[in-house]
Amino acid sequence: MKIAIDGMGGDNAPAEIVSGVIKALEEFKDIEFYITGPEESIKKEIAKNNYSGNNIIVIDAKEVITTNEHPVMAVRRKKDSSLCKALNLVKEGICDAVISAGSTGAFLAGCTFIVGRIKGIKRPALAPVMPGKNGSFIIVDAGANVDSKPEYLVQFAHMGKEYYKGVLNGENPSVGLVNIGEEAEKGNDLTKESFKLLSEEKLNFVGNIEPREITKGDVNVIVCDGFTGNTILKMYEGTASTIMKVIKEEVMASGIVSKIGAVLLKPVFNNIAKRFDYKEYGGAPFLGVDGICIKAHGSSDARAFKSAIKQAKIFYDNKVLDKIKENI
Amino acid sequence: MKIAIDGMGGDNAPAEIVSGVIKALEEFKDIEFYITGPEESIKKEIAKNNYSGNNIIVIDAKEVITTNEHPVMAVRRKKDSSLCKALNLVKEGICDAVISAGSTGAFLAGCTFIVGRIKGIKRPALAPVMPGKNGSFIIVDAGANVDSKPEYLVQFAHMGKEYYKGVLNGENPSVGLVNIGEEAEKGNDLTKESFKLLSEEKLNFVGNIEPREITKGDVNVIVCDGFTGNTILKMYEGTASTIMKVIKEEVMASGIVSKIGAVLLKPVFNNIAKRFDYKEYGGAPFLGVDGICIKAHGSSDARAFKSAIKQAKIFYDNKVLDKIKENI
Repeated sequence: MKIAIDGMGGDNAPAEIVSGVIKALEEFKDIEFYITGPEESIKKEIAKNNYSGNNIIVIDAKEVITTNEHPVMAVRRKKDSSLCKALNLVKEGICDAVISAGSTGAFLAGCTFIVGRIKGIKRPALAPVMPGKNGSFIIVDAGANVDSKPEYLVQFAHMGKEYYKGVLNGENPSVGLVNIGEEAEKGNDLTKESFKLLSEEKLNFVGNIEPREITKGDVNVIVCDGFTGNTILKMYEGTASTIMKVIKEEVMASGIVSKIGAVLLKPVFNNIAKRFDYKEYGGAPFLGVDGICIKAHGSSDARAFKSAIKQAKIFYDNKVLDKIKENI
Repeated sequence: MKIAIDGMGGDNAPAEIVSGVIKALEEFKDIEFYITGPEESIKKEIAKNNYSGNNIIVIDAKEVITTNEHPVMAVRRKKDSSLCKALNLVKEGICDAVISAGSTGAFLAGCTFIVGRIKGIKRPALAPVMPGKNGSFIIVDAGANVDSKPEYLVQFAHMGKEYYKGVLNGENPSVGLVNIGEEAEKGNDLTKESFKLLSEEKLNFVGNIEPREITKGDVNVIVCDGFTGNTILKMYEGTASTIMKVIKEEVMASGIVSKIGAVLLKPVFNNIAKRFDYKEYGGAPFLGVDGICIKAHGSSDARAFKSAIKQAKIFYDNKVLDKIKENI
């Protein structure tokens, strides 16, 4: 397998990106990596990691796309950017997958314009894996399509199902439609029509799922428009962070007994942090484009980036792309 | 002040509703209550609470609207329901406010059809008060209007501002538009247009607020369409509940040291529960209808219902309804 890596994408590029690639090579010795970016910088990072094997090829790219740029403009203008060069490697069939921790907007635009959609797919969708209390789930779409139509949501459901089956090892994954009420007639124009369409599809469709139930992790594939999906994702992160901060605040403001309690509970909190650690979950696949395209977290360190590489490998090994194509 | 009470609304009606009214009377001796419901049942509850004063008038209502009924149908057909009778008391000018812990859908429909909108208000909106890390905030709209237009959101902002000022004592409250990105050009058609309109209004408009920031509580009035608002509300509840359950799970699965830690930390968790206790926050006002209409939580006990009564009283004392009308 050959993977194109945007060497300059993310808050910790190129150091953590290159380091993540080399960590991955310890486990997956057969993967060949094509890292894009300013040749000297990338080679310096490779040397720092004492890597001297033949599985990394550096592709020189002089420009970098930042998160402050207009995504579409940036992709159109900066042909010599690390992102565009990585995407082109997939387009030209040189690589089987591409991973970037850079600007989400630019990545989505670049995947769509350069790699291109699968024939028949109306809108590709971002599908991050999230930790739930009773298991992982994916949200499709988590932000690629802010205005969606019912027929898009049906495709999101099928793509999400294939991804969940292939990468997360779930047999016959359950699919739920995000809605503010359980009954079929609840919700807005989009959800009412989507409910009807989804009911007629060959899916393990469990009906509407209220946002209150999502984090339990009992439903595997959560389908919604990108605005709602992104809101869910960010409310999940924000609420979790708020609660953890409030616990800390209250411990700091309390007496010695509670402080001792907090020390004794440290292993429990460490376990929880591990259960909910996005770094273990890899990145978000962009489903519906004609290639394996993974958006790693912007703040990825080497370990998180390695998880995204592993995810791309499972995606490839289990032929998820072919299965999505067969299903359209 | 005279308050109409839907004596049969909510999971714990009529017992906790009547008990909440009597608790409120201990503090607010001048309020007169009109409780609707089957006369005998309500009177039995009053007797159980050993109340023998003159501030409660029972209005017989033989029907009850349940949460399983179609809201609009139920309000139209069940004229003799405890909800409709309570709403009519406000419509006829006998009462200054109405509170119900019953079906949200039926309450919203009833307020709109029976009490009626304020002249000039396009869509009334539900505006629950939520606890944030650094302070309380309100979400307008939290579920009354699943499909919204930019001009509705502008009215939500003004009504929210007046409510926050009048009831939560905030001078010049900040107003944020929920969006999946901070920049003005981010989001869907609704948020892009709403951003423009809100920027031109006489408001302390702080721009877009990402869902990740909401629970911090730094922005006072959170404006969005009802589908998004309801999603935020339920993600907040669901995530908080999931995290608390995961902490419990991990403590139960851990050794004796962590269990002792959990016992020592009990006061801290109690403080947190208190900070985030909806029972202290009252209900959600339905803003934009021509009366003080408060939706109490469906699972309200006497204490929660008393908070909703207190909220109605502050709403009334501070003439928030007049201020909303002046602002339209």
